[in-house]
Amino acid sequence: MDMEKVNSMDFGEFVDVFGNVVERCPLIAAAVWSQRPFSNSEDLEKHFFAFIDALPRSGQEGILRCHPDLAGRELQQGTLTAESRREQRGAGLMSLDAAERLRLAELNAQYRARFGFPFVLAARLSDRAAVPGELARRLQRPPAEELRTALGEVKKIGRLRLADLLGAAGLAGP
Amino acid sequence: MDMEKVNSMDFGEFVDVFGNVVERCPLIAAAVWSQRPFSNSEDLEKHFFAFIDALPRSGQEGILRCHPDLAGRELQQGTLTAESRREQRGAGLMSLDAAERLRLAELNAQYRARFGFPFVLAARLSDRAAVPGELARRLQRPPAEELRTALGEVKKIGRLRLADLLGAAGLAGP
Repeated sequence: MDMEKVNSMDFGEFVDVFGNVVERCPLIAAAVWSQRPFSNSEDLEKHFFAFIDALPRSGQEGILRCHPDLAGRELQQGTLTAESRREQRGAGLMSLDAAERLRLAELNAQYRARFGFPFVLAARLSDRAAVPGELARRLQRPPAEELRTALGEVKKIGRLRLADLLGAAGLAGP
Repeated sequence: MDMEKVNSMDFGEFVDVFGNVVERCPLIAAAVWSQRPFSNSEDLEKHFFAFIDALPRSGQEGILRCHPDLAGRELQQGTLTAESRREQRGAGLMSLDAAERLRLAELNAQYRARFGFPFVLAARLSDRAAVPGELARRLQRPPAEELRTALGEVKKIGRLRLADLLGAAGLAGP
């Protein structure tokens, strides 16, 4: 998909295509459409990230709260978004054994209780062996620092999802 | 549902219950959870509205762009949210004849082209006879004024949805 095509989309098409670049936050794609035309994929990404950065802290926490747990209830119940399901499957999180699932569930619960949002990680840049250790490590960090880290993961996820949608043509830019 | 119950919810429960107070914007409910405890339903509502008011213009337009057309494609295809479907049905918008549907589709398209967001109206406070005239009237207004009017409709819809969720107990407050 090239940027000319992206720039020609009405907002309905744009939200259909980019609505889950930030997990379950179509509002953000719908806001970013106001900034068209986009010169290339970096420019498009920049507007997604700028919107996130400009939100008040409650809004940034709100973005995180729209994310599912890794290897959590929604994976078990089949209610993940298509993107999240693919990412979690790719990281091997659908083939944990019972002990691994229990360990992650306990860590996820501790993390949610401590920070008031779920543990968010770009699963495509990690794997099932690394996730519990990373979760345990981030569980120890100060809340303000952890909020920044978690939003950084949201951006990594968004960058990868945009690359999937735009492909090489969009990434090359003009 | 009383406010004690609301204030005891973790963010997952809160977003499950209040995630569609603003149509397809669970991010807003997820952000509002940061402001708990809420003293009563007016206080809860106040935080939803304050979040909307604090967004940049692109974000406010983004909220509107997450709304479906009245009597539009999504109603035909059965992809409306449960709340929107109930509201549009209640206003009689599911029983338009072909000529009425066509007339509304034309007006919706003109409105979207003019303002860059869909026509939003609290359908429960209107009906099928009034909608086309109201749409034609608002189509003539200056964009900045129409944005304010449309966000006012988002708030009316949100107030009614909150009242449905909280019932009389929540409305009474302490």
